[in-house]
Amino acid sequence: MQTSEVKLRLRRLSDALSSAGIDAALVAVPVNLFYLTGTIFNGSLYLDAKGRAYAFARYVQPIDGVECVVARKPELIPGLLRKAGVPLPETLMLEDDYLPANLYARLSQVFDGVAVKRDLLRSVRCVKTAYEQEQLKLSATAHARAYARIPALLHQSTTDLDLTIEIERAMRLEGCLGIMRLFGTNMEIHMGSVLAGDNALARSPYDFAMGGTGVHPSLPISASGTPLREGTTVMVDMGGNFTGYISDMTRTYAVGSLPQQAYDLHNLSISIQRELSRAKAGDTCEMLYERGVQLVREAGAWDYYMEPVQGSRFVGHGIGLEVNELPVLCAKNKTVLEEGMVVALEPKFVLPGVGPLGTENTYIVRSYGLECITSAPEEL
Amino acid sequence: MQTSEVKLRLRRLSDALSSAGIDAALVAVPVNLFYLTGTIFNGSLYLDAKGRAYAFARYVQPIDGVECVVARKPELIPGLLRKAGVPLPETLMLEDDYLPANLYARLSQVFDGVAVKRDLLRSVRCVKTAYEQEQLKLSATAHARAYARIPALLHQSTTDLDLTIEIERAMRLEGCLGIMRLFGTNMEIHMGSVLAGDNALARSPYDFAMGGTGVHPSLPISASGTPLREGTTVMVDMGGNFTGYISDMTRTYAVGSLPQQAYDLHNLSISIQRELSRAKAGDTCEMLYERGVQLVREAGAWDYYMEPVQGSRFVGHGIGLEVNELPVLCAKNKTVLEEGMVVALEPKFVLPGVGPLGTENTYIVRSYGLECITSAPEEL
Repeated sequence: MQTSEVKLRLRRLSDALSSAGIDAALVAVPVNLFYLTGTIFNGSLYLDAKGRAYAFARYVQPIDGVECVVARKPELIPGLLRKAGVPLPETLMLEDDYLPANLYARLSQVFDGVAVKRDLLRSVRCVKTAYEQEQLKLSATAHARAYARIPALLHQSTTDLDLTIEIERAMRLEGCLGIMRLFGTNMEIHMGSVLAGDNALARSPYDFAMGGTGVHPSLPISASGTPLREGTTVMVDMGGNFTGYISDMTRTYAVGSLPQQAYDLHNLSISIQRELSRAKAGDTCEMLYERGVQLVREAGAWDYYMEPVQGSRFVGHGIGLEVNELPVLCAKNKTVLEEGMVVALEPKFVLPGVGPLGTENTYIVRSYGLECITSAPEEL
Repeated sequence: MQTSEVKLRLRRLSDALSSAGIDAALVAVPVNLFYLTGTIFNGSLYLDAKGRAYAFARYVQPIDGVECVVARKPELIPGLLRKAGVPLPETLMLEDDYLPANLYARLSQVFDGVAVKRDLLRSVRCVKTAYEQEQLKLSATAHARAYARIPALLHQSTTDLDLTIEIERAMRLEGCLGIMRLFGTNMEIHMGSVLAGDNALARSPYDFAMGGTGVHPSLPISASGTPLREGTTVMVDMGGNFTGYISDMTRTYAVGSLPQQAYDLHNLSISIQRELSRAKAGDTCEMLYERGVQLVREAGAWDYYMEPVQGSRFVGHGIGLEVNELPVLCAKNKTVLEEGMVVALEPKFVLPGVGPLGTENTYIVRSYGLECITSAPEEL
């Protein structure tokens, strides 16, 4: 990552600290260290509201734009800052969205008498820089290349699990890094979800739009070993982590011919996205969610929408370094869309006896509407 | 999971609560819910020191041996317990090893005036039940089957990354679930590590025994695209998660012929494990670590051992539902080995110009010594 990009990101956080009246932040979680410095190191980043940045680590590799200091443990940071002539903070942001409570408690004690403030990083990360948008587009392009292999793989597969394994390999061969960082304690999945037939009706305990039983109770999500039967569908929703930034894209495939209703629901998903992508910077998340619900109801498709029973009450979510970034496009969320936010829209349906239907695409919020960056063909 | 097994595990935690003088535990993280109930659900488990267990969730699936109650959010739990005639706790264990600080803070407020106590689950999980030991053995058997495919895959691969992708597929075809749960904020990896040649010298910021640069700065670990050159080695350390329980096993492969020193270091790793596996219940973790260091020094191999610069100051670690469970076999750890603990031993070396050397195996602690459960052939 270029020095100018590191400086831009550090300034975004220091500006946010400054606006919130917080003296400094101490950042220790890999995804946030990568966001702020373009590298991951074994230590923590201290950034004050004036923009002074220090990396404290056991072993220090040089980071452009950041002063790097060897520190075997975080408790040594105040002494090292004092030595550098930096005033110690009275208020300090810690990553309470990420840090396990015991590490949070430990870091809270590093500075005597400091008042600990809440995490601003998810809000800061929510609007993507031009460089981040480029990384997302690179991921989306590779993601589409990998999906182009799916029709051939489908012909060779007899179950959703066979297909999953070959798609994972295709993703990896196109450069997918494998891991998909997920925000929150209630999301676990391997490289993504593949749902065939009525397995899409199975509720998962996780906070994903769709479920599936999985093949083992320790990971109740995605493919279950369901045969790819004539007259059913299979939905592929893999995480496109090719650059650290994840493009989110779902495509659905028909095995043999399907009833007309299946095509109708699939096309409804596409037309809802087309309609919602007229949303502009300035609209609220709630507006998109409610408009989606309205379109589903007008089409008489509510009974097939998402997981009405468990209640997947959203139509999309932010995406970037992690799945499930801000903003979430759900009921009652008054967050205003801003240029540079990136969201995945995923109005999905399940037709019992046939399977899951619909697509998902990743969009960058622009002044004129949502720009779609995931370009694989959308038809069933 | 059988009801008797659920009851056994719940009793282990309720006994631990009772010994620590804690009234109850509220458990909300997937890995611990799976441990205690054999299922993952979207909610939390309340267990008191008397052994009364209630699952509170948005959507409730039946769990043998646990009373299941619908609760849209944790704040409703006290009212529901009162209704069931259960006295409210004055002291409460929360998962401070796992919960993000903001969720921990929220759960701390659920019961008025409760004193929150520290997490006992890692200690409880550390000694495996007979059923857990069986699951680990099932994983280890499938793991060995997958590794049997490696020599053929090696012949078809030109880089460590090609090889990684084909090994991942082989693991999945043998039933690997893909994800590998990792304990702690400072571990991220895809299905495991493949290190070829001098890439094994590259330090990683993560808390693994070995490093590697990876192929992207957002995931600085494992394969780097290094060609599999004549006269070098490649080390495969994939997570064997076939049953929720992970067997840990490393094997190293020679490309062409190697200098004698490479064979010597590899055999030293095997002989250190043979010697350490004479350890019995009653020995301390520190004793194993120090004995390992002594054997490395006696062989004059210290300069090639683990990552002396970054300081991987351990010879092994607990393993089970997660990588990096308790106990850690490191300096100054006075923890006493108990029957049923499961540890991976991984004394590893790197010979510059050649690559990584050594093996890793998973062992169950017995009264008579350590029982090795990972059986793939160990020679180079």
